[in-house]
Order: sequence, then structure tokens, then C-alpha cells
Amino acid sequence: MNDVANRVAVAASTPDVFGAQLETWRLRIEAALESRLPPATAVPARLHEAMRYSVLGGGKRIRPALLFATARTLGLTEDQVEAAACAIELVHVYSLVHDDLPAMDDDDLRRGRPTCHKAFDEATAILVGDALQPLAFQLLARDPALPPSPAIRLRLVDLLSEASGTFGMAGGQAIDLGVQGRQVDIAQIEDMHARKTGAIIRASVLMAAECVPGLDPKAHAALNDFATAIGLAFQIQDDLLDVLGDVSTLGKATGADRERDKPTHPAIIGIEASQERVHLLHGQALAALELFGERAAPLRALADWLLSRRY
Amino acid sequence: MNDVANRVAVAASTPDVFGAQLETWRLRIEAALESRLPPATAVPARLHEAMRYSVLGGGKRIRPALLFATARTLGLTEDQVEAAACAIELVHVYSLVHDDLPAMDDDDLRRGRPTCHKAFDEATAILVGDALQPLAFQLLARDPALPPSPAIRLRLVDLLSEASGTFGMAGGQAIDLGVQGRQVDIAQIEDMHARKTGAIIRASVLMAAECVPGLDPKAHAALNDFATAIGLAFQIQDDLLDVLGDVSTLGKATGADRERDKPTHPAIIGIEASQERVHLLHGQALAALELFGERAAPLRALADWLLSRRY
Repeated sequence: MNDVANRVAVAASTPDVFGAQLETWRLRIEAALESRLPPATAVPARLHEAMRYSVLGGGKRIRPALLFATARTLGLTEDQVEAAACAIELVHVYSLVHDDLPAMDDDDLRRGRPTCHKAFDEATAILVGDALQPLAFQLLARDPALPPSPAIRLRLVDLLSEASGTFGMAGGQAIDLGVQGRQVDIAQIEDMHARKTGAIIRASVLMAAECVPGLDPKAHAALNDFATAIGLAFQIQDDLLDVLGDVSTLGKATGADRERDKPTHPAIIGIEASQERVHLLHGQALAALELFGERAAPLRALADWLLSRRY
Repeated sequence: MNDVANRVAVAASTPDVFGAQLETWRLRIEAALESRLPPATAVPARLHEAMRYSVLGGGKRIRPALLFATARTLGLTEDQVEAAACAIELVHVYSLVHDDLPAMDDDDLRRGRPTCHKAFDEATAILVGDALQPLAFQLLARDPALPPSPAIRLRLVDLLSEASGTFGMAGGQAIDLGVQGRQVDIAQIEDMHARKTGAIIRASVLMAAECVPGLDPKAHAALNDFATAIGLAFQIQDDLLDVLGDVSTLGKATGADRERDKPTHPAIIGIEASQERVHLLHGQALAALELFGERAAPLRALADWLLSRRY
């Protein structure tokens, strides 16, 4: 634990070193997404505009960064996983657009700008989500930047579809809506998180792993452990920021969870115990990376950055 | 044209022959879908219930029938394309659930029962659609009933994703919402139909074709022509039924298009010219099948049935 605390202190005091890497990845994925979205001039123009508004509207691009960092750890280049990183981000963005809808979380603000249904309209926002999903799968099937092996691409389709479905993201959102205002225990909360945010974070790491033919099963298992721990820690951190953060750095309303009577770690076990849980998971995530030695430096730095972030 | 008129007359007078085949296919796809949907007992139960309610809620299963009929024409068994037929139907059902939403077509009735958002709630209906999409792609990636070749499966993913996206179904729905109450010409209407309903109908036929390794490009082109013609004819027929049909046989409200000021073939070129257009397209569809001789009997019978239907 002291080691983790030290790493976080170091990461916080030298944000420029890894920060520059993150910014490079962010610019890369921004350009990669831009070139893969239909042009706003193509019919139906309003839908394409709304897709571009939603996808290119900023964001930290954490999931692509996880994919890139895993690729680097495994000796792949960013080029080889860029299309997969786009696919993951498209699915993530679609989920934000739908989660923001009036019938769901009813949010007006996202990344400091009006949400898609506010900037456009509800029907368009529904269709943006509906259209981003197949675009993600189409990239996995067709994008020339990915490894050409159909077997690898098909495994990516399998991973992404599993992570998006009812045992992944969509199921997590359904559980989330179902538990608001209800008494639930921490195990139920963690099952919800494992699906709602954990599944896509895990898929980000495992999709990069899948691009290495014949990867050692031990390396695969270690990455799975890393991603599972980091996914949950990330979500608890997010819920902590909702309690502790302020609107100007987050770019969205804070205190929203309490307002919705959403059961979260801070609400159930308190702020301090939640911070301790993040620390513990952080340690587990780093321990899982030991197998890779120095090669895992990008993943370690990303984990440290994710769990020390203030926004 | 006389040949077409004769065929329709014969089909209408002997519905039992092909009707029995359709019913066999319908029962098969019903069981196939049932076994591939998550059980209603699995968490999140309400979402799984709503998915089963929407998918297993009847319907003519026209797209699976097109897939089965194409398979038979090409010498494949129904077993070999059953998972692909399920994938197509899941995507079709998701589109119905989302199209029925208050922000879209705002329909209360579908197949004679309350629409998903009426029977459950709006958030659940959004998530049903969101979760049916990845389930469809997962079947293509994973289902043991499909041909095992990753290359074939990947082509199916590619076809289904293209047919579902903005240059297919989702784009067609966006165009549809955009043209309501506006002056548009018949070319714009036909572009809308080619995407909104045509793309998935075309994909149904082409996905079966893709399951035949090394299919003669001429056969592929003929099936593409057939599917394109039948897709448009089917939609015009649907719009005619909206004007001419009655609620008891259709299981949904009629006159809905006029009420929404939706531009359709009957509204723009009139009922008779629309019927003539259906006839013409029917003839084109049958002409495209000549290449296959007697082997195309199932596809011919299905085309005849589709375009003489009264519901």
C-alpha cells in the first residue's frame, strides 16, 4: 500500500511526463475517430452531424488509452489497435448518449456541453446511439488498420458484443436504473459496476491482448485481473468525484448520484472506506502487472493517473 | 406482367401449400430465438423479460423466411443459417422497439399487443433495443450452428453492420423522421425505403449467400437484384396496406402514415400507380431468379406470398 501511495504521489507531482503520452494518444484517437465517422455532409446530414457532435465532443478517451497502453505492454504498435480503440470508444459514446436521455438519467450537460438530445432532439439522440453500435462492429469487420486475420477480428467482435450486452454494459445500466432508491448491498453494487463500466474497460484491455496471436495464457489472465481491478477502482473513484468534485473541473453536475438516491460505494460504506477500496484495487491491479516487468510501464502509469485524477 | 398476375392469383388461391412451409419456418425461428435469448430469470430480470416479450411477441418472421428460402435455393440447410436468421430478426425487432418510442413514431400497439415501452417503460425499451444489437453480433461471432469459418462469419458481421447503420436501417429511420410533413420526390422516398427496410431485407438474402463459399458472382448479383426489388416492393405494399388494410387483420393502427403526413408511394403517386410499381418490381425480382431455375422455387413462392399478402 505504501508503494501505491508513493506511486500516486509521484504521478501527481510529475503529471507532465505521462500527461504528454496521454495527450498524444488523445490526439491520435480524435483523428482516428474523425476519419472513420461518416461526413456531416452525407445524407442523413442531421444524424451524421449529431454523431460527430457526440463522438468528437472531447472526453478523456480513457478506454482507447487503456487499449494503447496494453498494446505497448505487449509489443504492439498503436497503429495495430487503432481501429479497435475506435470501436470501443464508439460503443462508450453511444452509451453516454442513451444514458443521458430523459427516460434514463435525464442529463442536460455532458463534457461541459449540451447533451445530444438537448443539442439536437430525442429521436436523433436515440438514432445516434443506434448507429454508433453497428459502426463499431463494422470497423472490427472491415477496417484495414486491424490485423487482417479473420479469426482475430471475430474474437474482437465477440469481446465487444459480450461487453455491450445484458451481461455487460446494457445490463449494468438496467440494474442501475432498477436499484435507484432501493436498499442494496455492496455485492450488488459491484456486480452492477462490473457490467456497466467494468465490462467495456476489461474489453479494452482484452481486445489489445487478442491482437497478439498465441499470447501466453498467464499474460492473458494477468491482464484480465488488472482490467477487472482497475475497472471497479475507476468507478468507485468516479462516484467519489461525484461527492467531492466540483462542476467546473468535472464538466458535469456533481452530487447527481445523491440527488437520484443512487446507491454507490461512498453512500453505502462512506468516503474513507471507498478511498481505501480504490487503494486496495489499485494495488491488486499493479500486482497483476508484475509478470510483465518494465514492459508494463505504460499500463502502470495509466493506472496511477486514472486513480489519482481529480476530474 | 401477366405471368406475375397469374402467379399471385395462384398463390392466393393455394395459400396452404406455401403457407405450411412458412409456418414451419416460423416455428423454427421462434424456437431458435427462444433458446438464444437470455432467460427471464437471469439478472437483470426485467430487461430480459422485456427482450423476450419483444422478440417472442409473434410477427411474420419475413426476414428469417427470406434467409431460409435463399439457403434452400443455394443448397444449404436451414440449420446452417439459423443463427444468421436469428441475428437478422433480433436487429429487426430492436428497430421496431425503438421506432415505437414516444420520441419516434409513438406507437402504443404492435402485433396486436402493447408496445415494449407501454408494457414495460421507456428506459427499458431503449435498453431492449441497445441489448438486442450486440446479441445479434454475438451470435454471428460465436453461435456453433453457423459455418465455422471465421472469414464467413466476419462477412456476416460486415453485412449486418452495414445494413444496420446510417447507410442502412438507422439512416433510413432518420430520413423518415426528417421528411414527415415535407415535400419530397419519389427518388428520395425510394432512397429512404432502400435504407430503412430494404437494407435488412437485402442483408437477409446476402447473408445466406455468404454462407456458400465460392458462390458464383453471377448468382450473387442475381440474388442482390432479387433482394433489392423485393425490398422496395414489400415496403410499397406495406404503405398500401396502411391505406387499404383494416386494423383487425394488421394488428396495428391503419391510416397512421396519413395522420403523420408521411410521404409514401400511395400519397405521392396514388394507389393504382403504387400497385403497378409493386407488380413491376415483383416481375423484376422473379426475372432475377431465372438463373437458378427450379431451385429458386422457395424464393419465388415467398416473393409471391409477400406481395399478395393482406396483412
